[in-house]
Amino acid sequence: MLTVSFTHCSYPIHIGHSIFENQALWQSLIASSQVCIVTNETIAPLYLSQLTAVFSGHQCDTVILPDGEVHKQLDAWLQIINTLAEKNHRRNTTLIALGGGVVGDLTGFAAACYQRGVHFIQVPTTLLAQVDASIGGKTGVNYHEMKNFIGAFYQPKAVIIDTDFLSSLPEREFRAGLAEVIKYALIRDKAFFDYLCQHVEAILGRSSDVLAYIIEVSCRTKIYFIEQDQFDQTGVRALLNFGHTFGHALESVLHYNILHGEAVAWGMRKACQLSQYLGYLSEDNVTQVNGLFKQLGLLISPPVDIEIDALLAFMRNDKKNNNDAIAVVLLKNLGDAFMTNEVASSLIKKIVSDFL
Amino acid sequence: MLTVSFTHCSYPIHIGHSIFENQALWQSLIASSQVCIVTNETIAPLYLSQLTAVFSGHQCDTVILPDGEVHKQLDAWLQIINTLAEKNHRRNTTLIALGGGVVGDLTGFAAACYQRGVHFIQVPTTLLAQVDASIGGKTGVNYHEMKNFIGAFYQPKAVIIDTDFLSSLPEREFRAGLAEVIKYALIRDKAFFDYLCQHVEAILGRSSDVLAYIIEVSCRTKIYFIEQDQFDQTGVRALLNFGHTFGHALESVLHYNILHGEAVAWGMRKACQLSQYLGYLSEDNVTQVNGLFKQLGLLISPPVDIEIDALLAFMRNDKKNNNDAIAVVLLKNLGDAFMTNEVASSLIKKIVSDFL
Repeated sequence: MLTVSFTHCSYPIHIGHSIFENQALWQSLIASSQVCIVTNETIAPLYLSQLTAVFSGHQCDTVILPDGEVHKQLDAWLQIINTLAEKNHRRNTTLIALGGGVVGDLTGFAAACYQRGVHFIQVPTTLLAQVDASIGGKTGVNYHEMKNFIGAFYQPKAVIIDTDFLSSLPEREFRAGLAEVIKYALIRDKAFFDYLCQHVEAILGRSSDVLAYIIEVSCRTKIYFIEQDQFDQTGVRALLNFGHTFGHALESVLHYNILHGEAVAWGMRKACQLSQYLGYLSEDNVTQVNGLFKQLGLLISPPVDIEIDALLAFMRNDKKNNNDAIAVVLLKNLGDAFMTNEVASSLIKKIVSDFL
Repeated sequence: MLTVSFTHCSYPIHIGHSIFENQALWQSLIASSQVCIVTNETIAPLYLSQLTAVFSGHQCDTVILPDGEVHKQLDAWLQIINTLAEKNHRRNTTLIALGGGVVGDLTGFAAACYQRGVHFIQVPTTLLAQVDASIGGKTGVNYHEMKNFIGAFYQPKAVIIDTDFLSSLPEREFRAGLAEVIKYALIRDKAFFDYLCQHVEAILGRSSDVLAYIIEVSCRTKIYFIEQDQFDQTGVRALLNFGHTFGHALESVLHYNILHGEAVAWGMRKACQLSQYLGYLSEDNVTQVNGLFKQLGLLISPPVDIEIDALLAFMRNDKKNNNDAIAVVLLKNLGDAFMTNEVASSLIKKIVSDFL
């Protein structure tokens, strides 16, 4: 078990096999007589009945949302609020997010706002959500094309990461999730980067031991950053956005017709390319990074007819910017990230226009 | 200046005459180059141009909302979010709520959610907002008929209470604001209750010294309760809801065609009546309370055709309840409140059915 500790709250992250049906674990986490499980149309037929069975002694309501980032909007958030209101959920109810990052972000934001805040527990079912979205309390929805433009910092009461869920994860989503794993290696942990390069086969074969290990290292790294900067104000947490300024803009311009991890994979390669251009990374470094992305099936390029100016406009709109300059996270070295807003827009344009 | 101090944040409350146009005060509070003033159609023609003049060196945008509790809905909240997005406000922007409780609650909730949280400053223009709504970080909107059902705990960066605003406040709203002042006296401060009884004439004459005094005492009392219970979880803060379980239900059943303070005034009288019935307050106490309400023009009764069962249903829906019992705040004595959920629904029904 890992623990996330902030000044005035802390919560456990349980990582293991077959733990999401563990009655004793749930009993230790939930005191209320009401629970509401929020999931999506893909996950519901696979795991919902097993989870509701745990709550046979509770008032257990369910919300089944459509699947996909395109549905991370106020409508879906209101659907959760409506169910809670209709079923008369009290301020001491507990929401459970059973799904990927979209379900987690929507459920967390509903928990943050329903009657000014109720408990929620994250049960991430995708690799991406297990190593990233479920930890740290960032919740919210997209607004028009603007990613996470409405939301709240609101911490879960616990996170339950069951590696069993990964067995049913489609190959493309699994690989997209690996993008965030690589991110942790690139921004802070060269040894972990080497580990990933050396274990490509075991990773793609979904060896449960290797998966449990890379999830735990990823979560530890995420915790390291967020504990120093709960509300994303000091710049420490911003380093977790490596590849994301580029990636978010690509998602927006493609109307979310790309997986988040795929967009971030492209964004990280662009950030590495920019880091090399500015003299930080060597050509060898970049070759090594691209090699890992290639082996993991993450050598993503945007469609050739993409509108570069629209992409740059979205980058300029990014929440991290405090003025008109575009803030980007770069690498001084593999395993060593820093943030800057001193890169000329023209250079960023040149880099994103290069269809590597 | 008063200060609200929580474990991990604190903020000042400035109380005075002609301070809302004080450039030096504003400069000490706002570091950002962008501000967005949110106000309503009633306040805008009276004070907006004076406030925007202070920000001639800033990007200063304005949102003018329709006036009234009936507009405290997600639509108005989205109108603020839309303006911020369209005008490209950054995460370091500052929102300013210039208006009564509705403007403050909407602006605070928009500030809580826009890009996961930006600064906001309360500039309450009604007596009600000055002594209550602007302090303590409760923000939110009504949802259908359910009061404050969607919202957040989100603290302002500062509160600026200018007694000059009260000169333009309509008589009915001014009197309604006095209901919350009386509340502080009844729940914690018998000496303040006596002061109010002895200064009815000066209060209704809006003597600026007397107003400044009762605002400061009220704010101090509110701070006393909220500092012990920032997130309304320990029961301490619930005492501030004296009269509100009854009052909120009345507002709901009348579709907000009653002022909040008027509904709370009725609710406090009902709570006193119940306290007397249960043997806590004497007949003399209740006579004295009703006498003060009468002198201040707050002897409110609901319309005779009100649906009592609908009213009770709303009371059962109140956020304070953790099960089907109705939680109410009662008085052991004038100046000494306590909360209970052990009053039989049938007795509550009897009390609300009595059209005192």
